[in-house]
Amino acid sequence: MKPILALDFGGTKLAAALVNPGEREWWRYERCLSPMNADASTDLEIMRSLIHSLLQGTTPSAIGVSFGGPVDATTGTVKLSHHVPGWENIPLQDLLTAEFGVPTTVDNDANVAALGEYRFGAGQGYDSLFYITISTGVGGGWVLNGKPWRGASGMAGEIGHMVVDPSGPLCLCGKQGCVERLASGPYMAQNARDILANRAKLHHGTILKNLVADDLNSLTGKLVSEAAAQGDDIAQAVLQKSAWALGVGIGNVANLINPQRFILGGSVTKASASWWSVVQKTARETALPEVSLEIVPAALGDDAPLWGAVALSGQ
Amino acid sequence: MKPILALDFGGTKLAAALVNPGEREWWRYERCLSPMNADASTDLEIMRSLIHSLLQGTTPSAIGVSFGGPVDATTGTVKLSHHVPGWENIPLQDLLTAEFGVPTTVDNDANVAALGEYRFGAGQGYDSLFYITISTGVGGGWVLNGKPWRGASGMAGEIGHMVVDPSGPLCLCGKQGCVERLASGPYMAQNARDILANRAKLHHGTILKNLVADDLNSLTGKLVSEAAAQGDDIAQAVLQKSAWALGVGIGNVANLINPQRFILGGSVTKASASWWSVVQKTARETALPEVSLEIVPAALGDDAPLWGAVALSGQ
Repeated sequence: MKPILALDFGGTKLAAALVNPGEREWWRYERCLSPMNADASTDLEIMRSLIHSLLQGTTPSAIGVSFGGPVDATTGTVKLSHHVPGWENIPLQDLLTAEFGVPTTVDNDANVAALGEYRFGAGQGYDSLFYITISTGVGGGWVLNGKPWRGASGMAGEIGHMVVDPSGPLCLCGKQGCVERLASGPYMAQNARDILANRAKLHHGTILKNLVADDLNSLTGKLVSEAAAQGDDIAQAVLQKSAWALGVGIGNVANLINPQRFILGGSVTKASASWWSVVQKTARETALPEVSLEIVPAALGDDAPLWGAVALSGQ
Repeated sequence: MKPILALDFGGTKLAAALVNPGEREWWRYERCLSPMNADASTDLEIMRSLIHSLLQGTTPSAIGVSFGGPVDATTGTVKLSHHVPGWENIPLQDLLTAEFGVPTTVDNDANVAALGEYRFGAGQGYDSLFYITISTGVGGGWVLNGKPWRGASGMAGEIGHMVVDPSGPLCLCGKQGCVERLASGPYMAQNARDILANRAKLHHGTILKNLVADDLNSLTGKLVSEAAAQGDDIAQAVLQKSAWALGVGIGNVANLINPQRFILGGSVTKASASWWSVVQKTARETALPEVSLEIVPAALGDDAPLWGAVALSGQ
């Protein structure tokens, strides 16, 4: 049997892997960082070289592709990338089908990761689930009745831009107090910076300030998590707000759709046990008492999009 | 061909109708108000008499039932009624199947009305839709892939208890600033009362106060709408907040599930053109620009649950 080729166009990295049908270990695996100043052409060139290095002359039975940005899944056309220029309206599915002569399927990374967790990870046996990634951004992907649910214009899953605090800080999307504005890594860093920049708080956030040697621009979501774990008061407040926002969002989704399981992945979910417990507690308080609610960590880690791409390819 | 029997156990009224398969006009129709101090037994007794008056000895091919409260649709067992005592765990489907000897299907009124609008109303041809009723409460029902979506514990659709203003007024559910707490008729009346009871506002809300002859306890959502139409400042603010809350909720749902259509029914939707335009505008601002969004009024009016019951019966 021919192997399946899985591709992951992330915002900052490219990965490709081959797996034999029915197997759960990669036969071959390649990845590399996307170069600074990459555009769609350089990303495609690098991906081609990864693919040829993997295939070594063999032909795959099918190609599944996870793309880090909005995709028209019905045609496999990339709408754009928020990280890499030049991806506007690139017919990625057609390009790959023509080049490799095998059936190719393309979808955005959150939908694909949801499918990956459903087939191979924390969602096995759960016919309705919502996968949420909390990382550079906050995105989500649905599996309903055992199938991806993409919505009328392919935009379903955008929990990141659900408003949970209408008097909260301004999000890039133009609204105030979106889940992403409070919960994502970069925005956590910004929120900590904004509090630290306030001179009235001189005697707070000392651990956080030490971690970045007083260079607030080098603050990251990860450092906020670390400082919180070490007892920094400002970092703890920022992290708590992140978990609260996500918890309200999840509780609202539970009331609306009541999926069997919520699966949480992405770097911010590695923050701390207290982050998780605030998420769980807030979601439970936001959902009606009669609404069942189950929130678990993702199982596939960074490989979720690649395994999802395998599932997407129909294997 | 035998007719279909459709039943509607509302919170304050009972209705029953017979229709011949494929027809869009009731063959026979009966309704009556639920008596004061009704319980499940009296409601069932009244419904029996309506049914016998309709059937006059004929046997229906199937029975579809809309119930105004949470229902386990897999077994057709009523969980409870928030309006009428004694409905706890009543196996309504089994009762009716045994009594009339024909297949019976039971679901809650929002799900049934959604199905009714899908099959016979404003949702025809829209395989994914969210029906919202804004009336005594705020509830919702899903049709996804052309089928009712009820969720893992049958509780999907609860947009009424989505939090849109975490610093807003306290809802009966224990949370603050739920959609229902701001948008429903009775809560609009309460919000107007609370503002009017504030002595600092003596020179405001005069139209509203005249409408109720200074008896604030007789205020209703309908009167708030009327006073707003006549230019009352407080009534307009309350109505605007209702529309805003619902608009945020709808925008959030569009981001999450991106259904083809939202269909709005219930008494509050009859408020005014300005209520509708605030709903439309707020929902559009809350949804991401790429998310398609279409919000239309329900077409079936008070008969939506009965027509939905016909659809539910599989006809």
